[in-house]
Amino acid sequence: MWRSLRPIGRSDASGGYRRYAWTGADADCRLWFRMQAEARRLNYEVDRNGNQWAWLGDPERGDAVVTGSHLDSVPDGGAFDGPLGVVSSFAALDELRRRGVTFTKPLAITNFGDEEGARFGLACVGSRLTAGKLTKEQAYGLTDGDGISLPRAMEAAGYDPEAIGPDPERLARIGAFVELHVEQGRALDLSGDRVGIASAIWPHGRWRFDFRGEANHAGTTRLVDRRDPMLSYAETVLAARREAELAGAVATFGKVAVEPNGVNAIPSLVRGWLDSRAADQATLDVVVEAIERAARERAERDGIDLAVVRESFTPVVEFEHALRDELGKLLGGERPVPVLGTGAGHDAGVLSGSIPTAMLFVRNPTGVSHSPAEHAEEDDCVAGVTALADVLEGLACS
Amino acid sequence: MWRSLRPIGRSDASGGYRRYAWTGADADCRLWFRMQAEARRLNYEVDRNGNQWAWLGDPERGDAVVTGSHLDSVPDGGAFDGPLGVVSSFAALDELRRRGVTFTKPLAITNFGDEEGARFGLACVGSRLTAGKLTKEQAYGLTDGDGISLPRAMEAAGYDPEAIGPDPERLARIGAFVELHVEQGRALDLSGDRVGIASAIWPHGRWRFDFRGEANHAGTTRLVDRRDPMLSYAETVLAARREAELAGAVATFGKVAVEPNGVNAIPSLVRGWLDSRAADQATLDVVVEAIERAARERAERDGIDLAVVRESFTPVVEFEHALRDELGKLLGGERPVPVLGTGAGHDAGVLSGSIPTAMLFVRNPTGVSHSPAEHAEEDDCVAGVTALADVLEGLACS
Repeated sequence: MWRSLRPIGRSDASGGYRRYAWTGADADCRLWFRMQAEARRLNYEVDRNGNQWAWLGDPERGDAVVTGSHLDSVPDGGAFDGPLGVVSSFAALDELRRRGVTFTKPLAITNFGDEEGARFGLACVGSRLTAGKLTKEQAYGLTDGDGISLPRAMEAAGYDPEAIGPDPERLARIGAFVELHVEQGRALDLSGDRVGIASAIWPHGRWRFDFRGEANHAGTTRLVDRRDPMLSYAETVLAARREAELAGAVATFGKVAVEPNGVNAIPSLVRGWLDSRAADQATLDVVVEAIERAARERAERDGIDLAVVRESFTPVVEFEHALRDELGKLLGGERPVPVLGTGAGHDAGVLSGSIPTAMLFVRNPTGVSHSPAEHAEEDDCVAGVTALADVLEGLACS
Repeated sequence: MWRSLRPIGRSDASGGYRRYAWTGADADCRLWFRMQAEARRLNYEVDRNGNQWAWLGDPERGDAVVTGSHLDSVPDGGAFDGPLGVVSSFAALDELRRRGVTFTKPLAITNFGDEEGARFGLACVGSRLTAGKLTKEQAYGLTDGDGISLPRAMEAAGYDPEAIGPDPERLARIGAFVELHVEQGRALDLSGDRVGIASAIWPHGRWRFDFRGEANHAGTTRLVDRRDPMLSYAETVLAARREAELAGAVATFGKVAVEPNGVNAIPSLVRGWLDSRAADQATLDVVVEAIERAARERAERDGIDLAVVRESFTPVVEFEHALRDELGKLLGGERPVPVLGTGAGHDAGVLSGSIPTAMLFVRNPTGVSHSPAEHAEEDDCVAGVTALADVLEGLACS
């Protein structure tokens, strides 16, 4: 399976993946999914929001066990974030058929659309729409960097944007959803485990900091006459790191936009995006407030107008304890499978408000993610497939 | 004249000008120049490098007095940087005709092409080509942000890119070149003068700082596992300000490019451009070395690879003392006209290596430049025209 998926949407320049929603690379990934489903004689369907499903058994029974993840990527993303969950789902089904088990519940494998949000700036669009956490109107308001709207992009890809919206009938089919994902940190590597179970997704927000100063000539404007927003931005970047360190949280400025962005022009505007996450809400609040305070102090000194806008926010997501404990029992050997929190958002997190949801993580030896250097060892991937097969057998077979 | 020039290439959104070389706005500016020349019965011509000339008298005499500036702009530039010099040249000629003077030397007014370098990244392309400071091959290697090469852009604008190159015959026609320009700092405002004379253009360089780290997930990567180049960049921005302050120089990071520039991705690359200038070479060296040292120290701490490339450098330009002193005498009233250095590059600076060159500055009450807010008072502009007329009368009339 990996061999046929590997070249799709891969950049020769970076070695990373550029599989963005509703692009040609995305269409190729979707075709790959359909071929995997049909090769296994599963019933293939696409739901109203463009998510792909491959069914074994009767979807209408209402207690299906579903597994899967996503195939799209961040810009220059790695091979594993997303695809490992989809590939492992098909491989786990193959393993269960080898074991000769009898399915007592319907099973489905899924590929959720536009998980990374690389093109339209909002993550988990497919699962959010399905769960009613993103309205059709909101989705219609999303545009990509070229000004193409989400409905126009869907239409160009051959999908019907009129149909999108909440899909409670589909969710009612599902008794449990389990998503396998490569770990995006080093907790399993540090504990020496191949596979772990998710406890919770940290609360997580994105804030836009607009530092507005005054464009001016970089060669002739005296330092005292400047209102240079780059200085306030720089101070804020360093404050974010400092405050996150103090609180045991993470805080990152990974995206910046500058106007006019000329070598010989003091900027009129520096716009920086803060991504911050922490194990609990109170800690996250403390971190972001401290960063904003540092930004305001420096902006005042620099004569800069600062506006801070919270662009998105996801509160803590605790995965269902009963399902999580059942996974622990199904996987428990000599030593218990570690249960760990994560700073990353996932479709499983979005769906956890609607249906019982759990996640499995596979060890990432370097912790590197969202990068061409993202990696998982083959032995660990095999252990992940075995664990997922064990879980699906326990949940869906007699 | 201002009324007809004002709307050309003006952005409704910003109120600033976007008059880039070989665009439609540039063509409109050039048509405006030609109409001004023809309305005054001057002989209009375009040289091999696309610079415009309007002649009164015989160009071939070899001792012409030339004045002028440029009509192009930086992105969202002001109305005065460049155009004030061209408009004042035509107005000064009108004033001399009103005075009824007799010209003993030929006079020309000029508009140099692509002074700001907003489109192809290199300033003063028209005068550099003419002075032989930029070869045809180098000019052919310039491309704009859309990948359009300079020769292709010239051709699309109806000019012959085959012809470009050094033009010593044209320079041999010129006895003296005087460029009037709005001041881009507040020296005249602080001294209470309407008009000043340039002493020198500060040495000036641009350095590209490439901070290379490791792209990673902003939510899941522990702080200790990060190699985040944004931190090293931020520290360097603050170091640049500090070192410039200490040395009485200027240093600016006005342009930055980030990869992958995603909200939830630690960057793999932050590329920042430093523009730095000082009154003398030794000071500039001290400033840039100190900034680079601070950048390297922080980069080492952050696990970042740093490469620093000097992209351009212009040594100090001293304007010819004889011509400068003559201007001082011609303009000298009760109190001497102030003589001041400037951090900005100009066509006059480029030409000063080939022909006697001088500059006049007109007061800028705020010092703001390269911005829609750039301004000069009408009385000061009139004083500039009078001063330029006085200078031209002294140099070109009996």
